[in-house]
Amino acid sequence: MSAGSPQRLLWRDVRVFDGLCELAEPMAVLVEDGRIAWLRPMAGLDEAAVAGAREAGRGGVLTPGLVDCHTHLLFAGDRADEFAQRLQGVSYAELARAGGGILATVRATRAASEEQLLAAARPRLQALLADGVTTLEIKSGYGLTVADELKLLCVARRLGEELPVRVVTSLLGAHALPPEYAGNSDAYIALVCEEMIPAAAAEGLADAVDMFCEAIAFAPEQCARVFAAARRHGLPVRVHAEQLSNQGAAALAARHGALSADHLEYLDEAGVQAMAAAGSVAVLLPGAFLDLGAVRRPPIELLRRHGVPMALASDANPGTSPLYLPTLLLHLACTLFHLSPDEALAGMTVHAARALGHDDFGRIAAGQRADLCLWDVARPAELAYAVQAGRLRQRVFGGAITYAR
Amino acid sequence: MSAGSPQRLLWRDVRVFDGLCELAEPMAVLVEDGRIAWLRPMAGLDEAAVAGAREAGRGGVLTPGLVDCHTHLLFAGDRADEFAQRLQGVSYAELARAGGGILATVRATRAASEEQLLAAARPRLQALLADGVTTLEIKSGYGLTVADELKLLCVARRLGEELPVRVVTSLLGAHALPPEYAGNSDAYIALVCEEMIPAAAAEGLADAVDMFCEAIAFAPEQCARVFAAARRHGLPVRVHAEQLSNQGAAALAARHGALSADHLEYLDEAGVQAMAAAGSVAVLLPGAFLDLGAVRRPPIELLRRHGVPMALASDANPGTSPLYLPTLLLHLACTLFHLSPDEALAGMTVHAARALGHDDFGRIAAGQRADLCLWDVARPAELAYAVQAGRLRQRVFGGAITYAR
Ligand SMILES: [Zn+2]
Ligand SMILES: [Zn+2]
Repeated sequence: MSAGSPQRLLWRDVRVFDGLCELAEPMAVLVEDGRIAWLRPMAGLDEAAVAGAREAGRGGVLTPGLVDCHTHLLFAGDRADEFAQRLQGVSYAELARAGGGILATVRATRAASEEQLLAAARPRLQALLADGVTTLEIKSGYGLTVADELKLLCVARRLGEELPVRVVTSLLGAHALPPEYAGNSDAYIALVCEEMIPAAAAEGLADAVDMFCEAIAFAPEQCARVFAAARRHGLPVRVHAEQLSNQGAAALAARHGALSADHLEYLDEAGVQAMAAAGSVAVLLPGAFLDLGAVRRPPIELLRRHGVPMALASDANPGTSPLYLPTLLLHLACTLFHLSPDEALAGMTVHAARALGHDDFGRIAAGQRADLCLWDVARPAELAYAVQAGRLRQRVFGGAITYAR
Repeated sequence: MSAGSPQRLLWRDVRVFDGLCELAEPMAVLVEDGRIAWLRPMAGLDEAAVAGAREAGRGGVLTPGLVDCHTHLLFAGDRADEFAQRLQGVSYAELARAGGGILATVRATRAASEEQLLAAARPRLQALLADGVTTLEIKSGYGLTVADELKLLCVARRLGEELPVRVVTSLLGAHALPPEYAGNSDAYIALVCEEMIPAAAAEGLADAVDMFCEAIAFAPEQCARVFAAARRHGLPVRVHAEQLSNQGAAALAARHGALSADHLEYLDEAGVQAMAAAGSVAVLLPGAFLDLGAVRRPPIELLRRHGVPMALASDANPGTSPLYLPTLLLHLACTLFHLSPDEALAGMTVHAARALGHDDFGRIAAGQRADLCLWDVARPAELAYAVQAGRLRQRVFGGAITYAR
C-alpha cells in the first residue's frame, strides 16, 4: 500500500464497469501521473507496454470511484429519538411544532464549532470512503444565517483537505425558513440572495447553489430569485424538486440551466422534457423514499424515454436518510425504483459526476482522473444485487492507493 | 485483544441494551468464566468487587451479541443475473420455467463440494460477524436429496467449528420440490419424512426441522406429515408461513409446538392466537419484503396485542434477500414494519434466541452466556436509526473478545 506520489500502476485481469456498462473481456488498466493512461483487453496484452509499472492489483471488479452527489453530511446533534417517535405515528408537522425536525438540527448546528462539526462528520465520511466514495457533494443548509452557512461550507472544504476525497459544495441557504423569519419568508430569501450567495461566491466556498422548492419550504417564485442571484455570482444551480408535490421546480431550474433536479417523485412529463432540453441530471434519492415510507416513485420510464441521465445519491442526512453505505443505495435504486444494476452503477459514477458539473472523473477511460475502486466481487452487478459491507479491496484517489485491505 | 481462555473482564461506563430495553443509567458489566457475572450502575460502583478484572472496554453501547435466527447462508452459484432480469419485469414463474430461481441454486449446490460450499459461505459469514452476529441459524434446503441436505448441515456445523460463532441448524428438506419429483410431491415428502429427517436426527446434524408451506411449495397436510416425523425423531419444528397467502400454516405449526413461524405477511388473527397459545415466536423478514416489493405487512399490531414475541432475521439468501448486514435489518424493520428501535433490537437478541429454542443467551443478565457487542454509538436506538458499517468496536463470544478495532 502506498499513498502520495503518483506513479505507473497496473491492474491486471479485472472486470471493468466503465461508468456505463460492464466490458465484455477481462482488462488491464494502466494509471500514470494520476490519470488513466489506457485500458486494454488482457488477451494479447503487450508486456513491453507495462514494463516497469507497479502491479497494483489482480482480479476482482474495477469501477470508477463512487460519486455521492447529494449529501447533507454536516450537522450536529442526532435525531434517533425523533426516528422512534415517527415510528409511533407522530407526524412530521407535530415534531416540527415541538421544535423537532430540521430546526432541531439547525439549533444544534448553530451551536457547534467548526471543530465539533468536523469531529461529528469524520466517522460518517470515513464510512462513505470505506464503501468506495472518492467524490462527494456536501450541502450547507442547517445554519440558515450567513455566518453559520459559511461555517458549514468551510468545514466541508476542510474535510476535503483532511481526507483523500474530492468534496464539492453546495450552498443550501434556502433549505428551511429559520424561526427568526417566521411569516416573512421573502425577507429570508432576500438575505440568501443579497448576502449569503455573494459572500459564499466571494470566498470561493460554494461550487453551486441549491434550494428546496416545496409547499413546506420555498415557492417557485422564490426559487427564481435565488437562481438569478446565483447566476449573477457565476454559480450553477440545483434544486430539491417535486419530492412531495409537483411545483414545477425542475422545469424552472432547467430554464436556469440547472446541473440537476433532485428527488422528483412528483415530476411530470413537461418537467422531464424541460430537463432533457437543458441537460439537467435527475438525481434519485431512494433512501429518503424508503425512510419516509413514500409510495409514488419518480417517473423512471419517462426519464429513460427522454434521455435524462439518472444519478443516484445517499441524501445522507439526519432526518430522512441516515444511510452511510453507498452501495446500499445501489440496491435500493434497483428494488424500489427498478433501475437495472448498470443504471444504478452509472448513477453513482458518470451521471453523478455530471450532476456536479464534472466530466473528468466518474468513468474508466483514457485521460480520466484515476479515482477507482477494486471490489471483491465476481461481477459489477453484484454490488447492487447484494448488500454487504467490506467488499472494497482497494480505493484509488487521484492515482494513489488510499485504502487497501 | 485476546481469544481463548476465559477470564474476568470488565466493561465500564457502557449504555446497556439488555435484550428488551435500554437501561437508564451507565453500567459496569463483569464477565467471568464465559458468563455474565453481574451488571451494576456505575454510580457507587464498589471497586473492591472488580479488583483484578481486566478492563475490556469503556464507553459506548453494549448489547447482547446479535442472533440471526433465519438464514439460508449455504449455497453455491449466485443469482445476480436473475436479480437484473427480475428488475426488467421477468416474473419469478418465468425465471423458474427457464431453470432459474431456487432450482438454479439447487443445481449449483448439488454440484459443489463441502470445501467449495465452505469457501463460498465464509465471506458472507464474516460479513455477518463484522456487524455483530454471535449466533446464527443456517438452513439446508438447496440440496433436496438426502445426501445433499446432509452435506449442507455438515458444512453448517463445520462453519460453527471454524469461526467464533454459534451455529444452529435447521433441516429444510421441504423447501422446494426437486425436479426429479415433479408432479409427485407426496413421494418427495415421504423421502423427507422417512429418510432425511431420520438420517439428520441420527447423525445429530439438525437442531430443528423447517419447511415452506405455500401454494408454490408444500400444502398444509404435507406440513403436518413433516411435523409429525420431526416429533418422532425428537426435533422441534419451524415453518415458512403465510408469506404470499394465508395457508393456516402458522396455526398448524403452533399445534405442533413450533418454535417459530416466519414471514407471516398474510397471517390472520386466528393464527396469531394459535401462536400466542403455543408460545411460538413470530420471525419477521423485512429483507425479503423489500426485495420482493411486497405491499402487505405482517400483522404487527395483532402480534403485539396477543403478546407474540417478534424476532427479526436477515433471511440471508441468494434469491429474495441477499442482505449480509444485520443492522440494516433493524432499520428495515423500523421503516417498513414500524417496529420501534427497541422492538427491533429485541427481535435480534432475546426473541431471536427464543426462536431457536434457547434462553441462555440473547440478554445481558447475570448467568447469561457472555455473547456481547460493544458499539461506537451514543444510544442503542442509533443502531436501528442509521445504517452504517464499521460501528462494531468489540465482539465478545463466550466471554472471549473475538473481534476488536
Ligand atoms: Zn437533500
Ligand atoms: Zn427462509
